[in-house]
Amino acid sequence: MTQQTQTTALDTVLAYHRAWTSGDVTAALEYVADNIVCQAPGAELIGKDAYGAFLGGFAPTLTGLTDLAAFGDDDHVVLFYYPHIGQITTAPAAEHFTLRDGKIAENILVFDRLSYAPPQQ
Amino acid sequence: MTQQTQTTALDTVLAYHRAWTSGDVTAALEYVADNIVCQAPGAELIGKDAYGAFLGGFAPTLTGLTDLAAFGDDDHVVLFYYPHIGQITTAPAAEHFTLRDGKIAENILVFDRLSYAPPQQ
Repeated sequence: MTQQTQTTALDTVLAYHRAWTSGDVTAALEYVADNIVCQAPGAELIGKDAYGAFLGGFAPTLTGLTDLAAFGDDDHVVLFYYPHIGQITTAPAAEHFTLRDGKIAENILVFDRLSYAPPQQ
Repeated sequence: MTQQTQTTALDTVLAYHRAWTSGDVTAALEYVADNIVCQAPGAELIGKDAYGAFLGGFAPTLTGLTDLAAFGDDDHVVLFYYPHIGQITTAPAAEHFTLRDGKIAENILVFDRLSYAPPQQ
């Protein structure tokens, strides 16, 4: 049974976003469905364990955050932000979330890998 | 004088998006401010001429489009879509637009360059 409202989907994703970006991956994963499918640059993650491992690997590298935009409707949310990774503070990331039964069931994540790990000179 | 409404910002960006993704870069640029600043992966484009050259170089490579999401408020719009580039049809792109005086004044564009041009095996 789905009882999403616009506020709920956005609230859920913002709570997830605040949790992992403050380092609490365990709390973030409470908003994630067991069967989540995530498309990330160069990787597809299927299931909460794989997703948790991915997020758990990335979260500790975050040194700061600049949020740009958050929009949503009943079942979908889009976030746009600058994750700070060391000296890199203006390379954007965006996420497109699909929620089902109040949990994050799909996440399409986009960032430019080369912007975070430029080739060695 | 700014007289934006939620509908207007989103409508403007969608008209821009439809124009260039159907190959009409000239029509798309009518929605763009002369002093646009665009942050793209690996490039910053300042001014309509530079932006038009960038868009004019990219648009002809587009072989199709899958739109995922479009959200906006008075002055900001976010688009999420899959640009099809040859055989690549599921690498996402996202854009964050800021509008001023009814024109697109800032565009933060994100896609993963490696997903479109994977290293040669």
